[in-house]
Amino acid sequence: MAADRLSNRHLLGIKYIDRNDIDLILDTAKNFKEVINRPIKKVPSLRDITIANIFFENSTRTKLSFELAEKRLSADIVNFAASSSSVSKGETLIDTVNNILSMKVDMVVMRHPYPGAGVFLSKHVKAQIVNAGDGAHEHPTQALLDAFSIQEKLGTVTGKKVVIVGDILHSRVAISNILCLQKLGAEVMVCGPTTLIPKHIASLGVRVEHDLRKALNWCDVANMLRIQLERQDIKYFPSLREYAMMYGLDKKLLQSLDKEIIVMHPGPINRGVEITSDVADSGQSIILDQVENGVAVRMAVLYLLAAQKE
Amino acid sequence: MAADRLSNRHLLGIKYIDRNDIDLILDTAKNFKEVINRPIKKVPSLRDITIANIFFENSTRTKLSFELAEKRLSADIVNFAASSSSVSKGETLIDTVNNILSMKVDMVVMRHPYPGAGVFLSKHVKAQIVNAGDGAHEHPTQALLDAFSIQEKLGTVTGKKVVIVGDILHSRVAISNILCLQKLGAEVMVCGPTTLIPKHIASLGVRVEHDLRKALNWCDVANMLRIQLERQDIKYFPSLREYAMMYGLDKKLLQSLDKEIIVMHPGPINRGVEITSDVADSGQSIILDQVENGVAVRMAVLYLLAAQKE
Amino acid sequence: MAADRLSNRHLLGIKYIDRNDIDLILDTAKNFKEVINRPIKKVPSLRDITIANIFFENSTRTKLSFELAEKRLSADIVNFAASSSSVSKGETLIDTVNNILSMKVDMVVMRHPYPGAGVFLSKHVKAQIVNAGDGAHEHPTQALLDAFSIQEKLGTVTGKKVVIVGDILHSRVAISNILCLQKLGAEVMVCGPTTLIPKHIASLGVRVEHDLRKALNWCDVANMLRIQLERQDIKYFPSLREYAMMYGLDKKLLQSLDKEIIVMHPGPINRGVEITSDVADSGQSIILDQVENGVAVRMAVLYLLAAQKE
Repeated sequence: MAADRLSNRHLLGIKYIDRNDIDLILDTAKNFKEVINRPIKKVPSLRDITIANIFFENSTRTKLSFELAEKRLSADIVNFAASSSSVSKGETLIDTVNNILSMKVDMVVMRHPYPGAGVFLSKHVKAQIVNAGDGAHEHPTQALLDAFSIQEKLGTVTGKKVVIVGDILHSRVAISNILCLQKLGAEVMVCGPTTLIPKHIASLGVRVEHDLRKALNWCDVANMLRIQLERQDIKYFPSLREYAMMYGLDKKLLQSLDKEIIVMHPGPINRGVEITSDVADSGQSIILDQVENGVAVRMAVLYLLAAQKE
Repeated sequence: MAADRLSNRHLLGIKYIDRNDIDLILDTAKNFKEVINRPIKKVPSLRDITIANIFFENSTRTKLSFELAEKRLSADIVNFAASSSSVSKGETLIDTVNNILSMKVDMVVMRHPYPGAGVFLSKHVKAQIVNAGDGAHEHPTQALLDAFSIQEKLGTVTGKKVVIVGDILHSRVAISNILCLQKLGAEVMVCGPTTLIPKHIASLGVRVEHDLRKALNWCDVANMLRIQLERQDIKYFPSLREYAMMYGLDKKLLQSLDKEIIVMHPGPINRGVEITSDVADSGQSIILDQVENGVAVRMAVLYLLAAQKE
Repeated sequence: MAADRLSNRHLLGIKYIDRNDIDLILDTAKNFKEVINRPIKKVPSLRDITIANIFFENSTRTKLSFELAEKRLSADIVNFAASSSSVSKGETLIDTVNNILSMKVDMVVMRHPYPGAGVFLSKHVKAQIVNAGDGAHEHPTQALLDAFSIQEKLGTVTGKKVVIVGDILHSRVAISNILCLQKLGAEVMVCGPTTLIPKHIASLGVRVEHDLRKALNWCDVANMLRIQLERQDIKYFPSLREYAMMYGLDKKLLQSLDKEIIVMHPGPINRGVEITSDVADSGQSIILDQVENGVAVRMAVLYLLAAQKE
């Protein structure tokens, strides 16, 4: 049913791909999930491909997931961390990447603090770019793995009701998720304090709810976003403790709902803040499935993009 | 003679394994030492195994040794350094490791600053854990490579007299060595200033000696522990210079002994503190053999544990 | 025509090799450049070789280039960064390297802040050493890749006129380039403010010129060295802005010359300082060729040294 190739040679954001692309990625990921659960967890598909993981921002989890996806595909890998990089020597982003490409690198997986860095780069260099998070802009592979996880659990995303809870304002995960879920035909709601929900969000066609209980009673799936404790520039109104009281999900609240919903979290979890331990470890949580599916989805993205190589 | 499999699916400490396990590891290491001395230094044994090296504390030497052991066994490797990790984002240790495991990692080699971190983790996650040093608790692979090196040099450990000299108080190497040597039937003595020898050490059945010359005249093997210059919280009584004068081993002292003893050091050496250069580089020193044997012993441990995979 | 093996088992500096060695490396690199431009960019030549990249100083670009060269040759690689190393624990350089070698490492690629570190090491350890930059002393692979790039573009280096512009005083690239170009029969000039040109440079048989226009009108090739903005201890007389005005190369100056010269830069570029963007991106610039050739030249060096293994 799905097309057999992506419409684009990069993955810059969910914004730039269509439903056919998403379906193709999710279908392909299903096959790769089988691969990584076999005793021999590898395929030789990208044996001739060299991938550079360029991280201008720390991200252990996403980087590890990409690295494992690349290894499972037998790609050659080079890692480039900005902290030890030429960037601090005054080189431009384009020069840095063009240098890496001149060394015969085929694909670039990039995490960058500036929104749009991937799109900018894709216009100026020859490599295929996979956006592994660019500021508050997009985090497309996270959205794809979330969609994959919902589809795996519920059979489909179409027609499902998903609420994204927490800090929507500073979250690339939220934006990519909203776009991806909508393209797949889900209904999306965002829930959180007014201070953490951008005013323009309604223009994306999502519902806005400030009462967590109401939101949870409406949804099939609750995606509990991470409170970024390490970012001192974000004020969690009125305080972290009050945030946890008003928007944290505990077992009691979960069990008081009319139906059994699915609980997701992009990690890393602050146990006792966004969700309590008994929720995180409950049968309704698919948090570790998300992590596992992340490798399969990233394998699918890299595999499909490699087929687009000009 | 030795059993053909380990009694445990983790290597958490010498405390938790028995003499059969140790013999099996040392026998297996002997074969791997041959492998790494062949022109082709590799075997495909762990081709289907993925190992995560999780280091919450710096350790260039141990990490390099494990990495090489893993490469010689053809395992897939992912490295995870705590400094750039989710840990600083407030994630629990169990969540961090469970996340890595969800990405289909089979084995975890972990260095952690807290005593017992490996044991704790082994109770809460599914992976097989190899303790690469947990605070002042244990450093089992170091003890195993030390035993291997003694056995290689003297034919056996059983019945040999080994003195461990220096900072016993802050040393996981000392504890693991004492346990390992005793299980193999050696007699063990510790030697150092009273300030660096824990009061309870005699309860382990080791001799205590404060006079270095007497200790050396008693032993077959002297293991000269490292003075941790970088740890400002340790006071080397009465001063580093006096420590070196009283507990440092120089050529003159070595040659004045009744018999030819073997000199070991876990590295990195502070030349002129624990031992002088002429001792470190003498024919009685097996320090570089220890390093070489470290790779063989770690290959044996990983290989045998992989066979225990459930 | 060229000999079939190097005269030396290390690559410590251009100073220590002769024209036959250089020709052999450049000829071999030509073959490897074909390899890295094939769909399958790899050869199994160093499948049985383990290489340690030991960087006591940051160098993303050089390290990445060596790593890719090693991967294209199918070598096993271990990376060792000084920041996380035993060095900070008081270990000597020789002990550090001997430890790594005891783990059965065949070759060491080393970047070190001290001039002569590679030469020193080669006298005290058994491994083959490749100098990847030692203080202000030498950076031989950079000089070789620069010579390769000139030869590729102009057919030969012999008889060509090359001007090296900028900070000659603090530059290992300058010294290695001068020696390499001279051994290949080129005429070499250095150009820059008096403050950045060492007094003794004339003794190397190079011309000295302080007027950039005159230098450019003389040469076939201009190698525009990097201004090290990150080094606060270097004073760029009289100021960076005036440096750029007097020694920066822009399109207008380039086009006003009598002939079409080639523009080189070792990177990373400070656009608008040493050269303007229109020069860097012009058809006369071979800057990205240099980067590509770097991988081929380093493959040649490693391959030829491996054949010298005792």
